[in-house]
Amino acid sequence: MRLSLPRIIPALKNGAILFRGKPLTINKSLHNHSTVVLGGKPHIFSKAHLYCSPTFTQVKGLHQNHYNMSSTQGKPITCTAAVAYAAGKPLTVEQIVVDPPKAHEVRIKIEYTAVCHTDAYTLSGIDPEGAFPSILGHEGSGIVESVGEGVTNVKVGDHVIALYTAECGKCKFCKSGKTNLCGSVRATQGKGVMPDGTSRFHNQKGEPLLHFMGCSTFSQYTVVADVSVVAVDPKAPLDSISLLGCGVTTGYGAAIKTANVQKGDTVAVFGAGTVGLSVVQGAKSRGASKIIVVDINNDKKQWSFDFGATDFVNPKEDLKEGETIVQKLIEMTDGGLEYTFDCTGNVKVMRDALEACHKGWGESIIIGVAGAGEEISTRPFQLVTGRVWKGSAFGGIKGRSEMGGLIEDYQNGKLKVDEFITHRRPFTEINDAFEDLHHGDCLRTVLDLAK
Amino acid sequence: MRLSLPRIIPALKNGAILFRGKPLTINKSLHNHSTVVLGGKPHIFSKAHLYCSPTFTQVKGLHQNHYNMSSTQGKPITCTAAVAYAAGKPLTVEQIVVDPPKAHEVRIKIEYTAVCHTDAYTLSGIDPEGAFPSILGHEGSGIVESVGEGVTNVKVGDHVIALYTAECGKCKFCKSGKTNLCGSVRATQGKGVMPDGTSRFHNQKGEPLLHFMGCSTFSQYTVVADVSVVAVDPKAPLDSISLLGCGVTTGYGAAIKTANVQKGDTVAVFGAGTVGLSVVQGAKSRGASKIIVVDINNDKKQWSFDFGATDFVNPKEDLKEGETIVQKLIEMTDGGLEYTFDCTGNVKVMRDALEACHKGWGESIIIGVAGAGEEISTRPFQLVTGRVWKGSAFGGIKGRSEMGGLIEDYQNGKLKVDEFITHRRPFTEINDAFEDLHHGDCLRTVLDLAK
Repeated sequence: MRLSLPRIIPALKNGAILFRGKPLTINKSLHNHSTVVLGGKPHIFSKAHLYCSPTFTQVKGLHQNHYNMSSTQGKPITCTAAVAYAAGKPLTVEQIVVDPPKAHEVRIKIEYTAVCHTDAYTLSGIDPEGAFPSILGHEGSGIVESVGEGVTNVKVGDHVIALYTAECGKCKFCKSGKTNLCGSVRATQGKGVMPDGTSRFHNQKGEPLLHFMGCSTFSQYTVVADVSVVAVDPKAPLDSISLLGCGVTTGYGAAIKTANVQKGDTVAVFGAGTVGLSVVQGAKSRGASKIIVVDINNDKKQWSFDFGATDFVNPKEDLKEGETIVQKLIEMTDGGLEYTFDCTGNVKVMRDALEACHKGWGESIIIGVAGAGEEISTRPFQLVTGRVWKGSAFGGIKGRSEMGGLIEDYQNGKLKVDEFITHRRPFTEINDAFEDLHHGDCLRTVLDLAK
Repeated sequence: MRLSLPRIIPALKNGAILFRGKPLTINKSLHNHSTVVLGGKPHIFSKAHLYCSPTFTQVKGLHQNHYNMSSTQGKPITCTAAVAYAAGKPLTVEQIVVDPPKAHEVRIKIEYTAVCHTDAYTLSGIDPEGAFPSILGHEGSGIVESVGEGVTNVKVGDHVIALYTAECGKCKFCKSGKTNLCGSVRATQGKGVMPDGTSRFHNQKGEPLLHFMGCSTFSQYTVVADVSVVAVDPKAPLDSISLLGCGVTTGYGAAIKTANVQKGDTVAVFGAGTVGLSVVQGAKSRGASKIIVVDINNDKKQWSFDFGATDFVNPKEDLKEGETIVQKLIEMTDGGLEYTFDCTGNVKVMRDALEACHKGWGESIIIGVAGAGEEISTRPFQLVTGRVWKGSAFGGIKGRSEMGGLIEDYQNGKLKVDEFITHRRPFTEINDAFEDLHHGDCLRTVLDLAK
């Protein structure tokens, strides 16, 4: 069994760590590993963990929960989760039971999760595929608690990000080299169950609770398929990198991978949330000559510039009488944009984004999720004259093989992540976090599952 | 002044050629040129012209018209044209006057023109940009009669194809390397006038007649911008290569350039007219593993196989009860197609074509022209899950720099062209040629302007 040593070291300095009421002591320290006595048993930690940036709170949390990974392996874990019992209702924070992982499954102790608009979309009831009762949440990070048979890609103690876009490396999709949309667990994931067709969650009444997007990060423990999790550099802080589980990766990838923006290109981004601002920073990292953010909320203006935008247009304020946003953008760019991105989910905006593209080569990328039954439309002439309409899921990023690169971009300062965390809350305030989303001052609320 | 020698040689053998009532005599024959006395004046012919495949009829036509190019240079020419006076009415075959070319303009003696669905579309009145009275026709070949000042890309006597998609080589579009949609004459071409804003056509009453698509091939003489014409190998028969002015190039280019079909790809083509069958042969030339033609007319079945299709589906006959064409195609291809092409102009078919694409990477290319105001639509989820919607105009082919390659493909037997000529008519039967289009047994009716 392995635990994150740096979580403990500073606490030891303060003499504050108790494990099951007994003090922890470091037994020995080797080149690559340290062994710590935890509850009378020696535990080995990789040296890499020493570079983490722990907080005393985390350690306290660990202590207060009297958590012992070794004792939970192979057993159901009772822990706190936020259950979505019905569309349109607040989540219910309660104790649930999380079964141990079966073969090719991984049980993760979720450390941090953020709330994304897609969670709100499903909770609202307009997602036609939303099913209840379920454990929502898909943007989260944590530590592997235990693994089922045959799991080789992660091991107990690994720092991980849950992936709603799996990567098996073996299916037609993974092997195509053309897409990140792995087909391995698609069918069961869409139904809210594990690949064997069953759930690992049930409530205290014994009622099964559905999984969500293959992640279900709104629980202190979750079980995911082994193809739906990636181990990451443990030096990267888990609170920040939880955002790489969806929003930041989705936007950044859409710019650098799906669109593959090149130096000098002009770009417009509709909607300046976490996804849109991540498109902005992706475009900036590629040297785009113009990055125009379009948003009806002026609160997003300063952020847009902070993340790399060159222009900000509020269609409610900045258009001349009779002028459309499409006309405005075409005029600003001498004919239209090389790339536009919809990060709103509004089908009318998607059309504007397409039609603001430059004739002959402009490409519009749909990222936002539209309401059930809503359709995009345009005159086919828009496409015949050279515009391209495409979409992007999870930024086109293959989670298991490419997440490491994004973490490096973050660690090298090329990819802003910490800046998106505008709010922090204990997990128990998750319903407030959903409210935060509707406020202009919020990009991401990160929830601490230990609180 | 140069004329096509082979048109005259066989006629000479028959002793049948008179020019303005006097017999023609060959004066001398040199290595590269022959000089023929025409109406008392010597005329030089390039040897290359000897490789053409002339018909005696053509020579007779030339004779009957008492045509003398040298005498027309710089002067208006009165000739036969088919005038579209109003939407929904038959064309009026009458004598019109064609003014000499101004600077950077070329006057072409049209030898052959075919009738394309786009001509019928505009004549029907549903083209919102259709304007009358005008000289329609955009799929034609001929010989340069004279050139205006500053023309350097073609010279008198050159065999040429008129290009509705110009190529100036200097505009933002041409220099982008990303599109064939040259912007140089776009604005005036759309208005039915030459780049100086005026027309070169008027009828006997002196009323100006508009140009069409920068070509107006439904006239024995036409004037086009120098950027809208390409000189071609004179060994290529003018009747066949007239089809490279639109249909064949549009379909073949859409497959090999816009889509860039690769070996092993699966392809579906909706609509088996000249464009669709040219997509088929483009896909075949790339080694596509499956080429499915979808058409509601069984007359197209044999042609589809002749041009390279592997399968033919008639949605009115070949679907199980409750099955859609999208489901059928997805089932036939284990998940959908790599590339689909709409060659119908029907917006519902365009949607089917998109949705029959393989998740993750399938691309659908719209080629057909939809009715005014009609719109394509789909759920954005189709794009977010990796399908790409694009279009193609003139097959993405740059007419001046790439036509030579297509002619070579034709000459090498890689590109079928002659096979599309199912009907031939004298020019005076042009209204019948429009009728031919509606019959399943017609791919192209080629009109001989000399008749």
